[in-house]
Amino acid sequence: MAAKETCFGVIGISGRGRGMLAELLSVEGVKVTAVCDKYEDRARDGVEIVKKKAGYTPDSYLDYRQLLAREDIVAVLCCTTWITHSRIAVDAMRAGKHIAFEVGGAASLEECWQMVRVSEQTGKFCMILENCCYDRNELAIFNMKKLGLFGEIIHLQGGYQHDLRDEISMGDLIRHGRIQNFSNRNGDLYPTHQLGPIAKLIDINRGNRFLTLSSMSSKTRGMHEWLNNSPDVDRILDSLDITDEQAAWFKEKYLDYHFTQGDIVTTMIKCARGETIFLIHDCMLPRPYSRNYRVQGTKGIYMEDKDSVYFDGVSPRRHDWEPFAPYRDKYEHPLWKQYAADGIHAGGHGGMDYLVLCAFAESAINDLKPPIDVYDTAAWMSVTCLSEQSVALGGAPVAVHDFTDGLWIDREPYRRGKYCLEEVCTDFFE
Amino acid sequence: MAAKETCFGVIGISGRGRGMLAELLSVEGVKVTAVCDKYEDRARDGVEIVKKKAGYTPDSYLDYRQLLAREDIVAVLCCTTWITHSRIAVDAMRAGKHIAFEVGGAASLEECWQMVRVSEQTGKFCMILENCCYDRNELAIFNMKKLGLFGEIIHLQGGYQHDLRDEISMGDLIRHGRIQNFSNRNGDLYPTHQLGPIAKLIDINRGNRFLTLSSMSSKTRGMHEWLNNSPDVDRILDSLDITDEQAAWFKEKYLDYHFTQGDIVTTMIKCARGETIFLIHDCMLPRPYSRNYRVQGTKGIYMEDKDSVYFDGVSPRRHDWEPFAPYRDKYEHPLWKQYAADGIHAGGHGGMDYLVLCAFAESAINDLKPPIDVYDTAAWMSVTCLSEQSVALGGAPVAVHDFTDGLWIDREPYRRGKYCLEEVCTDFFE
Repeated sequence: MAAKETCFGVIGISGRGRGMLAELLSVEGVKVTAVCDKYEDRARDGVEIVKKKAGYTPDSYLDYRQLLAREDIVAVLCCTTWITHSRIAVDAMRAGKHIAFEVGGAASLEECWQMVRVSEQTGKFCMILENCCYDRNELAIFNMKKLGLFGEIIHLQGGYQHDLRDEISMGDLIRHGRIQNFSNRNGDLYPTHQLGPIAKLIDINRGNRFLTLSSMSSKTRGMHEWLNNSPDVDRILDSLDITDEQAAWFKEKYLDYHFTQGDIVTTMIKCARGETIFLIHDCMLPRPYSRNYRVQGTKGIYMEDKDSVYFDGVSPRRHDWEPFAPYRDKYEHPLWKQYAADGIHAGGHGGMDYLVLCAFAESAINDLKPPIDVYDTAAWMSVTCLSEQSVALGGAPVAVHDFTDGLWIDREPYRRGKYCLEEVCTDFFE
Repeated sequence: MAAKETCFGVIGISGRGRGMLAELLSVEGVKVTAVCDKYEDRARDGVEIVKKKAGYTPDSYLDYRQLLAREDIVAVLCCTTWITHSRIAVDAMRAGKHIAFEVGGAASLEECWQMVRVSEQTGKFCMILENCCYDRNELAIFNMKKLGLFGEIIHLQGGYQHDLRDEISMGDLIRHGRIQNFSNRNGDLYPTHQLGPIAKLIDINRGNRFLTLSSMSSKTRGMHEWLNNSPDVDRILDSLDITDEQAAWFKEKYLDYHFTQGDIVTTMIKCARGETIFLIHDCMLPRPYSRNYRVQGTKGIYMEDKDSVYFDGVSPRRHDWEPFAPYRDKYEHPLWKQYAADGIHAGGHGGMDYLVLCAFAESAINDLKPPIDVYDTAAWMSVTCLSEQSVALGGAPVAVHDFTDGLWIDREPYRRGKYCLEEVCTDFFE
């Protein structure tokens, strides 16, 4: 068995890192020989997870450079804070490792370009782990688009609509990085969950590209209102493993705290082929979770928030929604069909964490280009710093860079590997 | 009876005009003594409608200036094409008549300013008949906002999402004005259906104002695809009262026709008090009807497309939608309660046509300022020409004018009349 396994390292054993590490260990052919976190307790957690789940003991490090110096490691999974992803990725590629990291936005265009250049120079891949690309619904939509149900795609919407007032405000107490970003930045801090699937659906970097975007930000009131008036605050503080002094310090600091991030940030993106995309970032107000997915073409429309579709001349009643579920079943993506049939990986976020890690592992183990490559990673992440620029410039449109240096015009759809997204590679599933 | 009636004129007996004329005749205290349309058959239709519905015969005109010259007429209802509203309004006010006209967008900022200046000079009012302000749902939302259910309002969405491919393309055959606009313009041509209620909800021109907007337009494909591929086209042509030559002419002209209007136009608006608004114009692709209404505050959210609400600490399950209907019943606006109780005016568009005409008639008969005044009319309509500018400028933000010349800062909420919107004037309903 061991001879067939490929060695991986995992950096960042945060709450998210713990889940992703456990998930990665369930992927065939993966051996995690080293874990790393700058906090000792978290590094220890990583060791324990591997021991418990895989039955062997990995080495652990506090400095990720030591992990990158190991010769056995082929690829690295990184689950650190948003603003450390690109520098760790660059260091990893320079150390000869493929790198995949958790989602987040970029702080600058330059860090995106650096990832691109280093990936080109080293031949190592750099993949953002956009799990939503592998969601059951999103995969079915890929399939339906490929089969022409939507006609020509015209407009798309998506967003990150997730009430995170507790996790944001209590970042200092729970060692979560969001707080620093929401305190100091103002833009679409977390664009990729729906932008990733949207980009794949309309062939971004392979026949299409983002041209410009403009963003607006609302006033910021949600956190202040919640921190000062909600009974949830005391309840959550009580539930945390903190001292009374820490709770008092928190209230002293945050009840009158000024957040910079607007409660709602909206972004419009224009694409080279003429599609428009509307994105929304909505994490500081009360609401049920939704990614606001909407796909609209010349023949039909899908809308996540209605869990419904409508297709011209196909839907039984003119101008009347019909449920999406039967379409999802009928056009189930082969990847998801197999996953459901195997039924053994009851993974995080409804299975999509497992599938995106399979995609990463498949590429790393077989030294393939990944289905989400450095150009995708750079383009999707750059929306964060560009939206910050546009907000700061009063909504002025700003240019999205072409990280392919023109190759997007005739780059072929990605067809390698079982986990590709643009194509539905049925030959893997016969 | 006759002594208590006030004389109205009606200009534009289009399909819409016919319905609105009939509706106006059912409003208490209204006598329609003159009708006008530039087409003789339509003018005759107007006379017949009045005879049938009211039992008397109005005069009819082909030139609206002749109608405006009559001394008996106090106020004019105008249902002509979008691009003739403001000039007829200006002529009407100069002739000493109050004017109310059907919804549509402005062609220029200057025509908006002209309406404002002429209204100020003449003391006559100029009211856009935004019926959606009087929709049952919208009225309940006003009430809920007033009672603080949403907390501080942060973000709003709305749109005109109405598959009008048949009415747009066949405008030449059915004497409908949309075709000229969709052929030659590119912007949010029809913003007011949801912008009106949104503006009233966040006190635009009375404590708040639109500051800037930016718009993007998608490619235009929907009409071409539909005209060339849908069996609906022949079916609809067959159903029209036209000759074979007209049908052949239509196909010759429109199968390869180039529309300028993008299939989807999106607009973001920033307000003085910090709210953001997202608008969408979506009339050229297959879809069920929706006005995309969404109201989001520090305490809760309403979403038309889900017919649901969520309120922090109120909704029974955390982060779970609950149906809107019980809230609508509980917070039913007194205006709608009375309307439902009377149950006698089964009017157009679920009753909101009747209510907006009541608001118009109440103001005209009693010489009151109307609940939707010239500043509202100008601000809402100006979004059309401003969105065209922004689209043409690649999404650049453009300034929305302050048609109140600064008075918005401390203008009081409108409290006169039974049909006011910002306030819920319960004393009219005791």
